[in-house]
Amino acid sequence: MSYKISILGGGSWGTALAILLGKKGYNIDLWTRDKEQCEHMNTARENTKYLPGIVIPNNVNIVNDIEKAIYKNDIIVLAIPSHAVRSAVELIKNNVNEGQVIVNVAKGIETDSLHRISEIVSEVIPNSKYAVLSGPSHAEEVARDMPTTIVAASNDIETAKYVQDIFMTPKFRVYTNPDVIGVELGGSLKNVIALGAGISDGLGYGDNTKAALMNRGIIEIARLGEKMGANKMTFAGLSGIGDLIVTCTSKHSRNRRAGILIGKGMKVEEAIDSVGMVVEGIKTTEAAYKLSKKYDVKMPITEELYGVLYDGKDVKKSVINLMLRDKKHEMEDIINSGDDIQ
Amino acid sequence: MSYKISILGGGSWGTALAILLGKKGYNIDLWTRDKEQCEHMNTARENTKYLPGIVIPNNVNIVNDIEKAIYKNDIIVLAIPSHAVRSAVELIKNNVNEGQVIVNVAKGIETDSLHRISEIVSEVIPNSKYAVLSGPSHAEEVARDMPTTIVAASNDIETAKYVQDIFMTPKFRVYTNPDVIGVELGGSLKNVIALGAGISDGLGYGDNTKAALMNRGIIEIARLGEKMGANKMTFAGLSGIGDLIVTCTSKHSRNRRAGILIGKGMKVEEAIDSVGMVVEGIKTTEAAYKLSKKYDVKMPITEELYGVLYDGKDVKKSVINLMLRDKKHEMEDIINSGDDIQ
Repeated sequence: MSYKISILGGGSWGTALAILLGKKGYNIDLWTRDKEQCEHMNTARENTKYLPGIVIPNNVNIVNDIEKAIYKNDIIVLAIPSHAVRSAVELIKNNVNEGQVIVNVAKGIETDSLHRISEIVSEVIPNSKYAVLSGPSHAEEVARDMPTTIVAASNDIETAKYVQDIFMTPKFRVYTNPDVIGVELGGSLKNVIALGAGISDGLGYGDNTKAALMNRGIIEIARLGEKMGANKMTFAGLSGIGDLIVTCTSKHSRNRRAGILIGKGMKVEEAIDSVGMVVEGIKTTEAAYKLSKKYDVKMPITEELYGVLYDGKDVKKSVINLMLRDKKHEMEDIINSGDDIQ
Repeated sequence: MSYKISILGGGSWGTALAILLGKKGYNIDLWTRDKEQCEHMNTARENTKYLPGIVIPNNVNIVNDIEKAIYKNDIIVLAIPSHAVRSAVELIKNNVNEGQVIVNVAKGIETDSLHRISEIVSEVIPNSKYAVLSGPSHAEEVARDMPTTIVAASNDIETAKYVQDIFMTPKFRVYTNPDVIGVELGGSLKNVIALGAGISDGLGYGDNTKAALMNRGIIEIARLGEKMGANKMTFAGLSGIGDLIVTCTSKHSRNRRAGILIGKGMKVEEAIDSVGMVVEGIKTTEAAYKLSKKYDVKMPITEELYGVLYDGKDVKKSVINLMLRDKKHEMEDIINSGDDIQ
């Protein structure tokens, strides 16, 4: 069966998904906010800025008019930076039909409201069909057909299965999952840990240190998630530790790259400028810090990173704090507390 | 308080622990089977073969007589390849005193008996005090004082705390854990997944593929572990996914290096020769495969690797199988099955 797909956002991930789905033979409308970029991509058949050298199939129509982009299509993919999701959804809210499914692939938490993307979407477009697609999936590799796995989560299992069918290819494996809260939190908060892992790399620490940070990182995210209503096992899955692994170890990760620069002594603002793309983890660290206070959950890694990014805390001291602040028997507490991650 | 420590095995990990504990001021007897290596290390104060360039402190006494090595010391560290543990324990069984604690740092499963190291030790020396030390801890980095975390597991909490006190330093953080089965299995079976991750790298696949392999890998290990009596949360901790991460991503890992060579088309035997050190994962794959049959647990990654290593299966076909064989809704099964990892 063929589908008509709208993808909002011509960054690396939006473009990679347009290429993936375009190769499946679907008709794609890829909306980019920037008119010049739109025209260039339409003629060059390439996203020169974000995915240079990869051909965009001819059935991907790049458009600048958002209303046209979503008109009569089956699903609408939100592939825009998380802080721009609310305004984009406001733009389309009067044109979304009942049957259209909104598939979010953005990762982040709204800093002021502390809302996840699913909450933003249901505030602006009540009763919309919603799914989130998240997992270890660097855009560059998906666009180059590297075997990839990902999770489609929705409160409505039929919606999750529908999205799974649309995106699945022999090289792009989609699993369904009913835990929207867990999948959204894992995907967003891993960027905080990726910044920390980058800082550890930038300071010259080794693989042992980074593995400890990642492991303690997912545990504090799961601790928060469980209190917010997520299933803790989601964090042991592809959208949790799976995504964290790829983000913390890959050369593609902007969050990790920003962290490396900060670890080497660069100021936060300079590091963001130098990476040149949206570094979601910076804003997400603020959101995660606020969530840890709101839900009264101990998140030592998030707290130290918040100090580095927003309070000018010394970065070397912070990583040492991270390594040393946990109490001696914490692992034991985790194991003994009736399977709770604490 | 000062302790007297025996370390059996002068490989990279035994030497790194001797350096770590020697710097704490303890008196160390480091036993090496090879007389020539023993003499060389004693005069050069360096393990030229495994940890070149790192000075061995003077309070580390390198000995070739195993009886002398364990005489009147407080703890005996087993830092020998897993397949040599039984014969080493046989050598010392009549000289171990009641108060001496045996600390195992070897990772592996006995291929014929399918016994873990704790089982081997209690068969040869019944009622001995036993702990296992395991986690994301490459020897090279520990010897160079990189911040590292690790787990000390024992059925007897006092023994675990005693070992924790002995090994803990500000750069080497030890957590206790009562789950010996889970810690031993995680440490051993991760070498199987590391081989697979290396193969994926050797075939030229990306970070997405490797993250998928690691994530599905720890899930199949946890599935086996739970059936063998382990706590599944142990596999989400430092000795589980933590150790797996470091092994699958680090340039130091012999298992991963062997995998890369196999992925590039080298024959298994040649790859082992080329790495030049013990590649635990090769034998462990056989043991893991047998365990999956014995306990009737589905372990697709282990099964494919067994085919590659022991049945001459085509490596490219196997990795593709690994990526594609899982059924569509497996993640959902995991989440929906009342927290069970399936």
